Amino acid sequence: MEKLAIIDMGSNSIRFVVLQINDNKSYSFLYQEKESIRLGQGLTQTGELSDAGMERAMKCLKVYKHIMEVMEIQNCIAVATAAVRNASNGDEFLKRIYAETGVAMTVITGEREAYLGYLGVINTIAMKDFLLFDLGGASVELTLVQEGEPVHSVSIPIGAVTVTEKFNLQGNVDAIALQDCLKFVRKKLLAADWIKNLRLPLVGIGGTARTFAKMDQRTTNYELTKVHNYILPAEHFDALYTEITTRTSANRKKIPGLSSERADLIVAGAAVIKTLFDTAGSPELVVSGCGLREGLFFEYYTSYFHLPAPRFDDILKFSIRNFVGTLGGIVNESHCQQVTHTAGLLFDQLKDLHGYGERERLYLTTAAQLHDVGKIINFYDHARHSAFMIGHAPLYGLTQREQLIVSFIAGFHHGISRKTLRAYRYANMVTAEDWAMVRKLSTFLALAEASDITYEQVVQDIHVTTAENVAVAVITTAPGVAYNAADYEMNQLTKQFKKEFGISLLLVWK
Amino acid sequence: MEKLAIIDMGSNSIRFVVLQINDNKSYSFLYQEKESIRLGQGLTQTGELSDAGMERAMKCLKVYKHIMEVMEIQNCIAVATAAVRNASNGDEFLKRIYAETGVAMTVITGEREAYLGYLGVINTIAMKDFLLFDLGGASVELTLVQEGEPVHSVSIPIGAVTVTEKFNLQGNVDAIALQDCLKFVRKKLLAADWIKNLRLPLVGIGGTARTFAKMDQRTTNYELTKVHNYILPAEHFDALYTEITTRTSANRKKIPGLSSERADLIVAGAAVIKTLFDTAGSPELVVSGCGLREGLFFEYYTSYFHLPAPRFDDILKFSIRNFVGTLGGIVNESHCQQVTHTAGLLFDQLKDLHGYGERERLYLTTAAQLHDVGKIINFYDHARHSAFMIGHAPLYGLTQREQLIVSFIAGFHHGISRKTLRAYRYANMVTAEDWAMVRKLSTFLALAEASDITYEQVVQDIHVTTAENVAVAVITTAPGVAYNAADYEMNQLTKQFKKEFGISLLLVWK
Repeated sequence: MEKLAIIDMGSNSIRFVVLQINDNKSYSFLYQEKESIRLGQGLTQTGELSDAGMERAMKCLKVYKHIMEVMEIQNCIAVATAAVRNASNGDEFLKRIYAETGVAMTVITGEREAYLGYLGVINTIAMKDFLLFDLGGASVELTLVQEGEPVHSVSIPIGAVTVTEKFNLQGNVDAIALQDCLKFVRKKLLAADWIKNLRLPLVGIGGTARTFAKMDQRTTNYELTKVHNYILPAEHFDALYTEITTRTSANRKKIPGLSSERADLIVAGAAVIKTLFDTAGSPELVVSGCGLREGLFFEYYTSYFHLPAPRFDDILKFSIRNFVGTLGGIVNESHCQQVTHTAGLLFDQLKDLHGYGERERLYLTTAAQLHDVGKIINFYDHARHSAFMIGHAPLYGLTQREQLIVSFIAGFHHGISRKTLRAYRYANMVTAEDWAMVRKLSTFLALAEASDITYEQVVQDIHVTTAENVAVAVITTAPGVAYNAADYEMNQLTKQFKKEFGISLLLVWK
Repeated sequence: MEKLAIIDMGSNSIRFVVLQINDNKSYSFLYQEKESIRLGQGLTQTGELSDAGMERAMKCLKVYKHIMEVMEIQNCIAVATAAVRNASNGDEFLKRIYAETGVAMTVITGEREAYLGYLGVINTIAMKDFLLFDLGGASVELTLVQEGEPVHSVSIPIGAVTVTEKFNLQGNVDAIALQDCLKFVRKKLLAADWIKNLRLPLVGIGGTARTFAKMDQRTTNYELTKVHNYILPAEHFDALYTEITTRTSANRKKIPGLSSERADLIVAGAAVIKTLFDTAGSPELVVSGCGLREGLFFEYYTSYFHLPAPRFDDILKFSIRNFVGTLGGIVNESHCQQVTHTAGLLFDQLKDLHGYGERERLYLTTAAQLHDVGKIINFYDHARHSAFMIGHAPLYGLTQREQLIVSFIAGFHHGISRKTLRAYRYANMVTAEDWAMVRKLSTFLALAEASDITYEQVVQDIHVTTAENVAVAVITTAPGVAYNAADYEMNQLTKQFKKEFGISLLLVWK
């Protein structure tokens, strides 16, 4: 077991997380704190970190150091970004931090900051081509990602705090100041002329992007409160941008989802993102809750286990394994593997009947791997608890909507009535067609689970021949094992099969 | 680590569970199967177990034995109840079971059956005085429990299956047959004349009682689906009884919550419970999902750890510890203990301000002990996940409504907005006054958690002096520890405190 603390000191806030890497290679968060220290306040005017800002930072760092001592953590990665990088007294401040707390904080370059943000995103969002921005208090990092690789990256010293100060955008918005600001931001951003007309989605890291997700979720009555991987279409962004820049300061504070401490900085932040949208011609913004800190962690983790690169080949697979690994053995792994295998066989063999593709197969196999996790809450009704857990677990590689679909498939497989599941929270986040798919796929999952009722991997292979009114499934069993219990259990589900697929299911064992 | 299988063969169904006792003394379920074998079918007429019934039982037992082999379980407690007990060929059948499967099943007496049911209930429902019944297929066990002790108990050989057969209550109900049946049941039950006019609540074990809970939940649109500890008032029972006994057989099957395999047996079962209600003059039926099997398990568990009695002194405390114990160390125990301690101090010291009693204090301290369990789902938003888990975990000693209140206190303590929490599923199961209490108690929990932000148990004691507009909390700290972080975090909550309690909170550290 290994514990690791990460401190990330920006111009606006300082963050502290503690992670644990378990013996089975899974990792989990142990602790998190965030404080709004506004270290970069006044930097635009003076070029220096202010005494007040440094005091606020120091106070926080002493607490974090103390917590590390209490938690007996030796490992700490501490980085400072744009505020310290750009301030003339930045180095001096880092020396003072080391002298007073023993925390060896290093300032990272804008390029490295961009790269770490990229690592945080590429390992937690399944996208390959996008324009990534990490908008902080004193800088914005831009990275063009193509086929999963960072092909251009740059750090530009404009951020939510610095731009706010430069154009006096606190309080009521002066229309002329805003125009000047937009012009200025556009000029600065065009230093990276490769962003022009990319027509790729934006992926956004940082408090401004997260706030836009929250505001849009409140506007659209989105039922989940998860920010990571939330998709904000350009039109939604534009509507929010108009609200933010035309309301009085007092009214702006009333926008649902906008916290009072962000209400001043949001105008400048919105201007930067607006300019990115317009310049790159992006259709949407995908908000990332993971960034620099996660990038640092993934770098550490992959190096700790001597992996060839700081990227996981299959982020969904990795996050499923990680999640199951943190549950302490409640899930019988060989059973889940067998259920996944059998569900996949049924899906493939009955493809003519359902017509679904690779993506739907992934929903099914993901649900199969996780269908038993709810047992950690309560063995009774565990399918339903699995659904809740899958919907909220840190799984990466699915959209939020897809993650819910997977959760429904798992929740439905014990034959929860349609009525009950529709009453489930978040149920109206998916369409009627999605529900039909969920019912079909959960029938496969139920059959697959029934086939492994004895936990001994009876089913080796399945071949289905479909006639007009019946699907004949010839099941090859492992040599020497009894299949009567599996046969009995599976036959309990033939009525459900007929209801969902319109034809009968006949099981033949050999 | 120890694994234990329990098999319980009744007249109607056979059940198989596997439990695991972990090294930290916590236990959890690993497996469960149930099969409707109707072993007692025809017993009333012939006095014997039928060949068909024995075949069905045998088939099941072979599968269970096989599963035990696959799961490498040596420990198995297997018991048979009334059907085998009353059949002339019962002993012979048990010998055959042993010969063909190696499962050493023993028949238990009616008294022992009653006692085991009592153990299952007394360890999972916080009641002290009640009339317990365990209504099976071929017998009903009655136990009078006073001050937590069984003072009378008896097994009477009438059950849902045998009474159904005797009075031909399958299909449409003949009014005269039903009257005859009620007369017969009453005469039989009055063998235990101590049940007359007890005016105590009924506690019911068995499929009939569980089915009544399900039917009532559907009728009242109850939002939880949990059967254990569900309270059914006498009037609700009477209304359902009328539905059951006056509908045609076809219409009876349509009663929501009544499964088709139970639709025939429910009439006789309802007649037995109706007679118990009337004879004992009971105001309500509390349904228990735990009975014989849990009784066997608690007997085994307490003997395994050399506890003085097969009963836990404090079932809530035990079940909390057990639940946390199954979560594999995700919860920092000393932190949770400290938060619980501090929340309790705040509650006690501010009693004049809130006026709540011991029961509300228990809600708060229970929420405090469990406020971090949601971290196992996802560190982010974990207060909300804790709420879900607490609402569905196998916690004993609270009513279902109380368990929800505790879950809300935990869910609310990270400052989830009132609006969000009201939108939470099950939110309308508690009253407006309950909500006001939840908000107040969760403010204590939030303050207590803030006080342990450094995880080093800063707060030792608190003394509050309340003036007209301010509560001055003098906090004694552990010697030599710094309290500034705790002070800072707690002061973030003074606004919330003022909102909930109407006066200011002033913290003084010494």
